[in-house]
Amino acid sequence: MQEFTIDVQQQIAASETPGAEFQALPWTRQRVVFFQLPESVQRDVLDDMDRQEVRRFVRRLDPDDATDVVGLLDEDTQGAVLGQLETDRRERIEFLLKFSPDSAAGMMDLGYVTVDKDQGFEEVARLVRRHEARTGRFPTVFVTDGDEVLGELPGHTLALAGHGSAVITEYLRPAPTVRYEQPDSEVIEVFRANPQSKIVVLDEDDSILGVIYADDLLQAIEEEAGQTLYEFTGVDEQESVLDGAFEKVRRRYKWLIINLGTAFLAAATVGLFEDTIAALTLLAIYMPVVAGMGGNAGTQSMAVTVRGIALEQISLRTGRRAIGNEVLAGAVNGVITGVIVAVIATLFNQSPLLGLVIGIAMVLNLVIAGFFGALVPLVLDRLGYDPATSATIFITTATDVLGFFIFLGLAQVVLL
Amino acid sequence: MQEFTIDVQQQIAASETPGAEFQALPWTRQRVVFFQLPESVQRDVLDDMDRQEVRRFVRRLDPDDATDVVGLLDEDTQGAVLGQLETDRRERIEFLLKFSPDSAAGMMDLGYVTVDKDQGFEEVARLVRRHEARTGRFPTVFVTDGDEVLGELPGHTLALAGHGSAVITEYLRPAPTVRYEQPDSEVIEVFRANPQSKIVVLDEDDSILGVIYADDLLQAIEEEAGQTLYEFTGVDEQESVLDGAFEKVRRRYKWLIINLGTAFLAAATVGLFEDTIAALTLLAIYMPVVAGMGGNAGTQSMAVTVRGIALEQISLRTGRRAIGNEVLAGAVNGVITGVIVAVIATLFNQSPLLGLVIGIAMVLNLVIAGFFGALVPLVLDRLGYDPATSATIFITTATDVLGFFIFLGLAQVVLL
Repeated sequence: MQEFTIDVQQQIAASETPGAEFQALPWTRQRVVFFQLPESVQRDVLDDMDRQEVRRFVRRLDPDDATDVVGLLDEDTQGAVLGQLETDRRERIEFLLKFSPDSAAGMMDLGYVTVDKDQGFEEVARLVRRHEARTGRFPTVFVTDGDEVLGELPGHTLALAGHGSAVITEYLRPAPTVRYEQPDSEVIEVFRANPQSKIVVLDEDDSILGVIYADDLLQAIEEEAGQTLYEFTGVDEQESVLDGAFEKVRRRYKWLIINLGTAFLAAATVGLFEDTIAALTLLAIYMPVVAGMGGNAGTQSMAVTVRGIALEQISLRTGRRAIGNEVLAGAVNGVITGVIVAVIATLFNQSPLLGLVIGIAMVLNLVIAGFFGALVPLVLDRLGYDPATSATIFITTATDVLGFFIFLGLAQVVLL
Repeated sequence: MQEFTIDVQQQIAASETPGAEFQALPWTRQRVVFFQLPESVQRDVLDDMDRQEVRRFVRRLDPDDATDVVGLLDEDTQGAVLGQLETDRRERIEFLLKFSPDSAAGMMDLGYVTVDKDQGFEEVARLVRRHEARTGRFPTVFVTDGDEVLGELPGHTLALAGHGSAVITEYLRPAPTVRYEQPDSEVIEVFRANPQSKIVVLDEDDSILGVIYADDLLQAIEEEAGQTLYEFTGVDEQESVLDGAFEKVRRRYKWLIINLGTAFLAAATVGLFEDTIAALTLLAIYMPVVAGMGGNAGTQSMAVTVRGIALEQISLRTGRRAIGNEVLAGAVNGVITGVIVAVIATLFNQSPLLGLVIGIAMVLNLVIAGFFGALVPLVLDRLGYDPATSATIFITTATDVLGFFIFLGLAQVVLL
């Protein structure tokens, strides 16, 4: 089953006729496979299908999934496909298309009905049956008082319909709300605090636009999940392993050029000590050790801080203690690795002074790594930037430039 | 609200009396805050509470959440706390404690009832009412034929109770199943293919052990999400930004020592060319450029491949084309950045030959980065290792060692 999914996805991505390949799948597989494909391949599949075929695919999807598919089409095809759907379906999709896919409204679903608090279970049952007949799905039932949402009526309370005069407001579960334009991340936050509820999406007037289920959120969370390492390495979040080579180049070269700047800063630092290196070539051999260890330690501190920011365990304002701990941890790890390097350098090169210089450089560079590794993401977060993406540039620059400066500078003073 | 959560978590983590601090929160906040705290702080909180207080906290939680809390206690306290709970509750928790928290059984919930396919809606309604009276929660209803699970009966079908002779098997929704010992990641996989279902957890005999809801999965997915960058940087997955400095050292020093090995391999490679560097110190200045760019490009290829593996879009068997694309992308990016570096080196150092050498080294190193960046995670995945954790070591070693070798080797041949 797993291998099967892999094969199918790869096969579609590599095919000259991805649309035909895709349509050869049984319907239930189509739904699953399509939404697992990277966006670039989804577009290829749709491009390779004619309008009738796209329409056939779209009409069998839930409105919110259908909206995601229609959103990938160019405007002409969009109009042609929508024009051929039943009016009710078309209107729902057109409504959902108005919202950003990364907002609360982009995640929401139209599977709900609303009833007034004064209505009885008979009326609720009637609305539910009508919705079910039209959509094939049991809706979430929201109870309102005028425009205000009072809560959700659990589905099983329908068993009370026909059993006399039960009052619906006595069976309400609280329904947390979000605004239609709130970003995914804030919706996830609301869900975290109310894990067993459905979330109501409201527009500016506080009227209900839709409902978000846990499974809609899961997709958003999974997407967020894959992004950290991407952001960290400067890969465009849309990139997929199945993309072609030139697509990959287009998505990465800018980051590499930015890093080239960083690398040249490090090179310039080394350049300051050209004479020192000329006098003692041995130093060039230990340069990768100093830089590599600083980079690794800084990345560790950064990873922990970025996760702490994401989990809201820390902010710049409350971070002083955490930064202090990173610096202290850097110092201790610096002593551990510095002693090892110093011993090796002393034994191999018969120079205790070289060992001392590189050991001290190691301790200082790991302190720098801890300090910047924790501080940079916190500052970026405070300034409103994404800490995972940009932090590495600054941290690597700090550990490379300061690391080389300390190591070669110490060497110049002590060894020459 | 966000700042409030941050403050509370930090305050508890930093407090001398974390248990008292925690218990000062209103109950609804306690539940949310506790499960957001890092595990080390959760333990501190529980250590600082006496058995009565722990019991008071545990008795108000759902059995699966209660199990997570009880699982953090030492054996003595565990016994004392469990011994004072109502029998029904205690038995449920004791049952759940038997399973690994990272397995399907560790995520599951006991909020279900089973009915035989031949029973009527009246019997279903009776079981549901009994379960609700006992637990305060509406259960999921599974319909079985002997031991075989036929499906789930949607809650709203209870409206059919008392309306004559409806047959329950006509209202079934399919219920996907997992084995109790399957890891989180496989359960998430099943959920992806069946996003709107509850998942049944079965034991070896195919009898039902529990049910997994979307919100149980969410926690697992969020945990998985935070882990990639951790694995990538060699940080222990339990580490939190709120941990103390020595906790941090304990969790990281091993990875740093492993990386020291890598760094020494790079140093040894440079050592082979000590005479070359002595003759042309300029080379030492460009070393960080070659190594840095190779490392960055390799990490990009790795990030994309690791995500592709996680999304099951690729495996070693089907990966040839993707590896080819990474190599080609590396070559193109190598030419782009290589030309920039060559021009700069030529202008700054008045040596077109040095520019040529460093430009060619850049192209070759980015090809190496693309090749190993894609291949290493795929091989590790095939061998059953986690690709995110160990891949960087191998990829960095490849780009450093081969990068220095090519750059300095070429320089020796061309420039001396």
